[in-house]
Amino acid sequence: MASNGDREVVNRDAFRQAVVNTLERRLFYVPSFKIYGGVAGLYDYGPPGCAVKSNVLAFWRQHFVLEENMLEVDCPCVTPEIVLKASGHVDKFTDLMVKDEKTGTCFRADHLLKDFCKDKLEKDINVTADKAAELKHVLAVLDDLSAEELGEKIREYGIVAPDTKNPLSDPYPFNLMFQTSIGPSGLSPGFMRPETAQGIFVNFKDLYYYNGNKLPFAAAQIGQAFRNEISPRQGLLRVREFTLAEIEHFVDSDDKSHPKFCEVSNLEFLMFPREKQVSGQPAKRLRLGEAVSKGIVNNATLGYFIGRVYLFLTCLGIDKDRLRFRQHLANEMAHYAADCWDAEIECSYGWIECVGIADRSAYDLRAHTDKSGVALVAHEKFAEPKEVEKLVIAPVKKELGIAFKGDQRMVCEALEVMSEKEAMEMKANLESKGEVEFHVCTLAKDVTIKTNMVTISKEKKKEHQRVFVPSVIEPSFGIGRIIYCLYEHSFYTRPSKTGDEQLNVFRFPPLVAPIKCTVFPLVQNQQYEEVAKHIAQILTAAGISYKIDMTGTSIGKRYARTDELGVPFAITVDSTSSVTIRERDSKVQIRVNVEEVASVVKEVTEGNSTWNDMLSKYHTPSALDDE
Amino acid sequence: MASNGDREVVNRDAFRQAVVNTLERRLFYVPSFKIYGGVAGLYDYGPPGCAVKSNVLAFWRQHFVLEENMLEVDCPCVTPEIVLKASGHVDKFTDLMVKDEKTGTCFRADHLLKDFCKDKLEKDINVTADKAAELKHVLAVLDDLSAEELGEKIREYGIVAPDTKNPLSDPYPFNLMFQTSIGPSGLSPGFMRPETAQGIFVNFKDLYYYNGNKLPFAAAQIGQAFRNEISPRQGLLRVREFTLAEIEHFVDSDDKSHPKFCEVSNLEFLMFPREKQVSGQPAKRLRLGEAVSKGIVNNATLGYFIGRVYLFLTCLGIDKDRLRFRQHLANEMAHYAADCWDAEIECSYGWIECVGIADRSAYDLRAHTDKSGVALVAHEKFAEPKEVEKLVIAPVKKELGIAFKGDQRMVCEALEVMSEKEAMEMKANLESKGEVEFHVCTLAKDVTIKTNMVTISKEKKKEHQRVFVPSVIEPSFGIGRIIYCLYEHSFYTRPSKTGDEQLNVFRFPPLVAPIKCTVFPLVQNQQYEEVAKHIAQILTAAGISYKIDMTGTSIGKRYARTDELGVPFAITVDSTSSVTIRERDSKVQIRVNVEEVASVVKEVTEGNSTWNDMLSKYHTPSALDDE
Repeated sequence: MASNGDREVVNRDAFRQAVVNTLERRLFYVPSFKIYGGVAGLYDYGPPGCAVKSNVLAFWRQHFVLEENMLEVDCPCVTPEIVLKASGHVDKFTDLMVKDEKTGTCFRADHLLKDFCKDKLEKDINVTADKAAELKHVLAVLDDLSAEELGEKIREYGIVAPDTKNPLSDPYPFNLMFQTSIGPSGLSPGFMRPETAQGIFVNFKDLYYYNGNKLPFAAAQIGQAFRNEISPRQGLLRVREFTLAEIEHFVDSDDKSHPKFCEVSNLEFLMFPREKQVSGQPAKRLRLGEAVSKGIVNNATLGYFIGRVYLFLTCLGIDKDRLRFRQHLANEMAHYAADCWDAEIECSYGWIECVGIADRSAYDLRAHTDKSGVALVAHEKFAEPKEVEKLVIAPVKKELGIAFKGDQRMVCEALEVMSEKEAMEMKANLESKGEVEFHVCTLAKDVTIKTNMVTISKEKKKEHQRVFVPSVIEPSFGIGRIIYCLYEHSFYTRPSKTGDEQLNVFRFPPLVAPIKCTVFPLVQNQQYEEVAKHIAQILTAAGISYKIDMTGTSIGKRYARTDELGVPFAITVDSTSSVTIRERDSKVQIRVNVEEVASVVKEVTEGNSTWNDMLSKYHTPSALDDE
Repeated sequence: MASNGDREVVNRDAFRQAVVNTLERRLFYVPSFKIYGGVAGLYDYGPPGCAVKSNVLAFWRQHFVLEENMLEVDCPCVTPEIVLKASGHVDKFTDLMVKDEKTGTCFRADHLLKDFCKDKLEKDINVTADKAAELKHVLAVLDDLSAEELGEKIREYGIVAPDTKNPLSDPYPFNLMFQTSIGPSGLSPGFMRPETAQGIFVNFKDLYYYNGNKLPFAAAQIGQAFRNEISPRQGLLRVREFTLAEIEHFVDSDDKSHPKFCEVSNLEFLMFPREKQVSGQPAKRLRLGEAVSKGIVNNATLGYFIGRVYLFLTCLGIDKDRLRFRQHLANEMAHYAADCWDAEIECSYGWIECVGIADRSAYDLRAHTDKSGVALVAHEKFAEPKEVEKLVIAPVKKELGIAFKGDQRMVCEALEVMSEKEAMEMKANLESKGEVEFHVCTLAKDVTIKTNMVTISKEKKKEHQRVFVPSVIEPSFGIGRIIYCLYEHSFYTRPSKTGDEQLNVFRFPPLVAPIKCTVFPLVQNQQYEEVAKHIAQILTAAGISYKIDMTGTSIGKRYARTDELGVPFAITVDSTSSVTIRERDSKVQIRVNVEEVASVVKEVTEGNSTWNDMLSKYHTPSALDDE
């Protein structure tokens, strides 16, 4: 007999299959280049999917760019190597790969290990408690394993290539960027961008100027990004090309308050702080204001964006009970990040990261400053000059040269970058002992520094401004993932009138619905068709998307077709003076004059009135039943 | 003394410089990756440029997709080789390139020859009349020259590499697609798509089904396309990455009428038919209905789209006197094309192709049918079965094998694809002479066909439907080019109030303007600032983009700043109850209550009222003068 867990997996898979079948059959999306056998990880959005995507992006622009007066930019996908060298992608944007040693087929090393452990745990009844604990531990630390550790586990467990059962190579890093060459010479390597953020960072100086040299401000970009996955799976969730919508909010690292935080501080939703995860507790509903004031969320600006993301996702129709904000664990976060929260949405694949909201400190602007030599900094002018005490470290190059010869430059640089604390300790030691041991990272050894080799002092200076590298807070949205989760959260089935089949419905809010209404002449008849065309013209002029269906198919079948596309309202022409409007989920109808119908649909789809307002305003014919 | 022509060139260059300076200074666009020295042919759209682009694309969707109920799709940029093999891009999407033989620098061969001829004609006073005629002829036929012919001319004229004066290599084709590799194996070559159209063609079968198996219908796609130019010049007009908006209108090739052609048939605009170009006559204003009825434009569907493109461009603000539709000459057009017209816009670079409107016949669907083996066809069901006479060609493989051995297959295929006329001629000849000479293209030779090798007959059959490959009419929009021309057509200068400087203005229509209005408190004062913020909130809620400028700068300077961004309306807060709204081009102001201001701006920017309506409705304070 199947366990509860098994049943849940079966249900999940069946549910997903039902959603995916409907999506592909109605062309929400299809595998790209299908007539040529397709390409893994590439998908086309067909007409309804494309409309949903447009709607999501238009709302994103309204909710973030317009609301916050963000500076939107649009940069190319083709990116020269130097930019992605600076950002770290050339060296570090990799996954560990193993090859089937005979066929050369490539696999993600962590996927094979994960599949092995899961399979063992689920299907091998001879697994001992000790072994089970070990396998669970491997699954927990999977993301942290080095190439060597992964290779060791693969050998230890005797994991071989799926299908062929051939031996596997050792794991080695594979860069996930699509590489190309810019221009005809073959001498300018380039990549398809893996994110849109870099285009904003390299423009910081101009954008800061455009904003009147004032902080904070945010720049935003919507565009394609690329990731040459080793072996894509999970349908729309892991693809090789996807649309990102990214915000880079630049802020003075000394002041991360936000003037509009109060507008979101009373929101309460599922949060999953680091401590809860580590101690094995579940996610918990928290008031955002409390999470910030208690320091669970690092600062108010980060908190503000978490709140805005919550509002964005729930307005789209994401179920708030299957949405949580999970804080990155210390080992997940880049060393420079101050804090990072992912908006995770639960779907049939589990909890999926759909939005990342990270405080990246000043890392990105520093990296591009270093590489380009152009200072990406902000200025704070003081109302009146301030007297400041500044640390001055002056290495004596001649003495260092005599003592360390070729190593002189490295020692010199190491001295110059000492923190205030280190420098003051050295000063004290030199004064008391005359010499001190000093570790030079770049030489990987200690050297002896003597009093004549460096002067360390504090000087008082008048300063008129503070020059600093701003911090950046980055909300980054995987639009395709959000849309896929939205499909799952919107999908349900209900029995047909005769009860002999299950009908599919997407309960998209009007904001998201690919088409806002359909127009049906009840029967094929010239008069009704003319009324339908007349209504269609008014709808076009009002900018409301619609579909007109003049086929003689039964009205019940036509309603079912339109429900499956998530169309919220169906207009049925059953007279020349008035028509009915049927709401998708309740199936309730109202009767409206032909001349009013477009404005009623516009009112409700644009959110100026609710369907309930319309129910109380218009007559609901009790005799009408659609299926 | 400079000739008129020279003066014109100087004026053009100065005008362009003024436009480009303003555009770059105000971040409409900037060279991409500027802090790293930039990459030729890659540009970023800064905030106002990005907003203009969004507006143009939103209007495109409204004007084409929504108005015609087109099926919009969204396909990836990464495209596997086989798709672009089928479309012909892998073999033919090339430019001829020459290399500096010492430095390896690459140049477009035709550019060097063109520059040489132009230079000679413009600057060499010793050029004879004969020589001048020859050079002009070369310029006229430049696009038709083969690699050999180009190489010959380069040698004949002694053209060397610019700058270095080194000798040049022979011209050879360089493929303009950015190449990459899909997946980790290195065995799946891919390209960044050079156009979005192929994504639509490969989906034809699904889209036709989605449309209820009915023709005609149109699919549309907006997206990035890529072209690895050899040496990009002409700023935004020739770039390596650009946004295309393409429509593929599928139609029965037996019926290219269009039900809505009457809506555009009375439009009259500059057209430049093939005959006028060949006979050296200028473009001429023609009524579209006449152009179609006289057969100047091949068919009504093509004519309909020409008309819609005209309306689209002029609504955006393209000057109708600097817009013409030029028909492709026979030698410019692909062999399969039935007719092709380019919407050309005149700017400082000359007449620039911005939209191509081509009747591509059934070429694309045939090419993908052949390559993929999936029939991309449409069906016309007959009301009652039709008796048709069908040609049946039955090669006798055995006899052909004996006669032609290894060539049997080629001969067989050549026989099968004979046209009805060829086949009936062969039948007659075989019957009278017993054998016939037959040219086999694929073998490049004649073979002798005898009576026993093939049977040719006509059979009567009852058919229930006609199966055919639809024709496609393709309007393809270069969005970046349209936007650049729009900038030039919208730009003008006017003297400042003091007359000591020229102020820049973009006369964008509200539809296009990056920001619809600005809000200025007249002086820095808390009361006015609060009113300004209150207005800002109402504008946000109404979905109107605005910029708020609280600096203490003089109102004249602030107006000048906003004119330079093409903002149509400036709201100045000079009291707590009412404010003024100033129109950009006339500089005329009206006084409006604080609570009404957002709805006035909304009315006018959305085109529901004109500025003149507002002038007659509201008080125009005569005393107010802005500069």
